[in-house]
Amino acid sequence: MPAPIDFYFDFSSPYGFLASEKIEALAAAHGREVRWCPMLLGVVFKQTGAVPLTQVPLKGDYARRDMVRSAKFHGIAGFRFPTKFPIPSQAAARIVLWAQQRDAALGAAIVHALYRAYFVADVDISDPDNAVAAAAKCGVDPAAARAAIDDPAIKDALRRSNEEAIAQGVFGSPFSIVDGEPFWGLDRLDQLDRWLATGGW
Amino acid sequence: MPAPIDFYFDFSSPYGFLASEKIEALAAAHGREVRWCPMLLGVVFKQTGAVPLTQVPLKGDYARRDMVRSAKFHGIAGFRFPTKFPIPSQAAARIVLWAQQRDAALGAAIVHALYRAYFVADVDISDPDNAVAAAAKCGVDPAAARAAIDDPAIKDALRRSNEEAIAQGVFGSPFSIVDGEPFWGLDRLDQLDRWLATGGW
Repeated sequence: MPAPIDFYFDFSSPYGFLASEKIEALAAAHGREVRWCPMLLGVVFKQTGAVPLTQVPLKGDYARRDMVRSAKFHGIAGFRFPTKFPIPSQAAARIVLWAQQRDAALGAAIVHALYRAYFVADVDISDPDNAVAAAAKCGVDPAAARAAIDDPAIKDALRRSNEEAIAQGVFGSPFSIVDGEPFWGLDRLDQLDRWLATGGW
Repeated sequence: MPAPIDFYFDFSSPYGFLASEKIEALAAAHGREVRWCPMLLGVVFKQTGAVPLTQVPLKGDYARRDMVRSAKFHGIAGFRFPTKFPIPSQAAARIVLWAQQRDAALGAAIVHALYRAYFVADVDISDPDNAVAAAAKCGVDPAAARAAIDDPAIKDALRRSNEEAIAQGVFGSPFSIVDGEPFWGLDRLDQLDRWLATGGW
């Protein structure tokens, strides 16, 4: 079995959401799986001095326009820029890390449920109760998911995920790494696709 | 005749060079022309607080790798990261603006000659004599081109080009605008292509 695609993302990242809707089909076309790696951009950004894209003059206005255009370009239905943005994404990330300890497929399903809650249904998933409600649609016990958000072991898991991201050179979201090759952004999925098809160049 | 694609670029921009090798064929496929708009990123960056990409921790290392990979992905032969980078690009920009006042096609030929001198032949085109020598291969008089670099009227033309870029919301290089729609980066040429094919979406 070849190595999976490590897909690093923050739940507050619009391009991360868009890429999350494409990465599994891309991976499957090349016999790869996706390893979902939730992390916090706020921690990663300390490495580069970056600030949230939408807060940068000129670039922020462009980005909001580009996100909507990119969603349509990639055939992703329902994207809307959230009312509250950016948001702290610890609660969502921790629920995913907790679920992954039980079942990787469940973790993947919850990633999609949480991302769509935020970027399609405009639900503020920084609120733990909202995040739990979104995850519960995937069949997890709400009380257990709610407890996981405050579980010291799960908090540790998120810290390790951030540290792993930094150690891998991750500085943005989405950030895919496969066979040691890094691909930053929704707009490198085309290169990732060809890289997997050709074995690099 | 439909409006041209306004192609804003800095001669010190690697992704600008890569896009400059693709934009004319893309435009021609849709019956459009390219209006080459040299500008100075140093001026434009003051609007956003940006710094040269390659100077950002982590992101800079990634970018150098991504530029080489992107050149190959897009089938652009000969790209190499210059020994001296970034460079002041006033001399190159002014020669283009001067040549454009005589003949738009000559200006386009000189854009390619200067960009290839820097990003393929590793010539430091911030040196006026080197910039003149590269432009002279397109048939312009070297003494006249050299004089243009210090001509107050041509200096003014570059200032106006920078002001026009800022007024259009340009914050990076390359930056293409057509029919009022902005496309930032080499990695939006795919969206630009479909936008022109479909009339927007």
